[in-house]
Amino acid sequence: MQRYKATVAYDGSGFSGYQIQPKGRTVQGEIEQVLQKLHKGHAVGVTASGRTDSGVHARGQVIHFDSPLRLSGDQWIKAFNSLLPDDISFLKAEEASSDFHARFDAVKKKYKYFLYSGPVRDPFKRHFAGHVRGSLNVEAMREAAGHLTGTHDFTSFCSAKTETGNRVRTLFELDMEEHGNELVLTFIGDGFLYNMVRIIVGTLLDVGSGKMDIGAIPDILAAKDRTLAGKTAPAEGLYLWEVYYE
Amino acid sequence: MQRYKATVAYDGSGFSGYQIQPKGRTVQGEIEQVLQKLHKGHAVGVTASGRTDSGVHARGQVIHFDSPLRLSGDQWIKAFNSLLPDDISFLKAEEASSDFHARFDAVKKKYKYFLYSGPVRDPFKRHFAGHVRGSLNVEAMREAAGHLTGTHDFTSFCSAKTETGNRVRTLFELDMEEHGNELVLTFIGDGFLYNMVRIIVGTLLDVGSGKMDIGAIPDILAAKDRTLAGKTAPAEGLYLWEVYYE
Repeated sequence: MQRYKATVAYDGSGFSGYQIQPKGRTVQGEIEQVLQKLHKGHAVGVTASGRTDSGVHARGQVIHFDSPLRLSGDQWIKAFNSLLPDDISFLKAEEASSDFHARFDAVKKKYKYFLYSGPVRDPFKRHFAGHVRGSLNVEAMREAAGHLTGTHDFTSFCSAKTETGNRVRTLFELDMEEHGNELVLTFIGDGFLYNMVRIIVGTLLDVGSGKMDIGAIPDILAAKDRTLAGKTAPAEGLYLWEVYYE
Repeated sequence: MQRYKATVAYDGSGFSGYQIQPKGRTVQGEIEQVLQKLHKGHAVGVTASGRTDSGVHARGQVIHFDSPLRLSGDQWIKAFNSLLPDDISFLKAEEASSDFHARFDAVKKKYKYFLYSGPVRDPFKRHFAGHVRGSLNVEAMREAAGHLTGTHDFTSFCSAKTETGNRVRTLFELDMEEHGNELVLTFIGDGFLYNMVRIIVGTLLDVGSGKMDIGAIPDILAAKDRTLAGKTAPAEGLYLWEVYYE
């Protein structure tokens, strides 16, 4: 048996999320179906760095799997990409040590969230970015973001359904870049709670549109109460961009 | 009755082309359905600057229609965009003189064709750009393009199914811009024959990949024979970008 590590991109708009489930098309389901074909009908399980929700995209999801086949990285890429549907693509594949674990060995993750503003919706962005009708005060959003970087208990910024006990995470970076009417938020952290990026984006949008004061952010963090933060921003703007290992 | 002119963008990937037809979802069909709703069930026809094929996109298709309703441009935009599916969007609407005609008054059109190169397909571009596996000699493509600008009989560069008799057209511009692994071709001409842009792109790809000599282009033009030019490039890379009026 050889363990392999692979980097995968997918357009999340046609999937009920990454993780396999009884109903609906999933990224994991499609990959495991191909692995089963490549292994003459034998099931081969895949482990990812983490799940992504329905509609969320990945530019650099990382997975691992074990196989008796000895293929080179390029051979795996060709095999997967010829058999996978065209909304998933293997970008990289390589041998990994037998104790490599895509989830437990991940030390940092980068997410990006794409927003565009304008009075009229753009049909080309409907699955790929969040839409804001009015203009945004990006300077205020940057200042608010400054209160969120560092190590905090992010209970107020994760779904009430979160089962994880320890909600302390470190957000190393929360950057914003403007390109014309597009705003790209980049998050790098040691881990992200359920819906954490989307709730932070929703809260920053409240700041950017003037609905919330910058000064409210430290209070919301301190209160550990999800109801005080903004709405969960839509899935279509979110991309798992990169997973970092030691 | 007032004539209105409107600019419309659509993601062509979910349509069987622009023009209404007995089967399949069309852009014209969706727009006319909304117009019928806005006119209490009365059918209102729409005329476009021209058709686009299945899978072809538009950033700036222009249409006209007549209506007894007196709405401002913003009111039409809001009415259309709240009732249309989210892969079509009205960008602009305005009153036009009663003799304005979206097709016959068009004096120039701009198309863009998006290509990306790379060993691995990109799931985010599968509906929005053509994919080239190897690298391209863009300088050779530029030189070949130089033979195509100007006024020519483009019989070799239109579908054999073209019914138009006069195939003389003027291509004012055929520019290429590279952005990383992306190549964008811009065409401005006084009119385009059926599949003309896609056949020119397919032919330039033969030049760029070394399959065809630059010097072959004038001979292909002179021969007026579709079989000598390259393949029709895929629909997904093509965008009707702008329509120009006097």
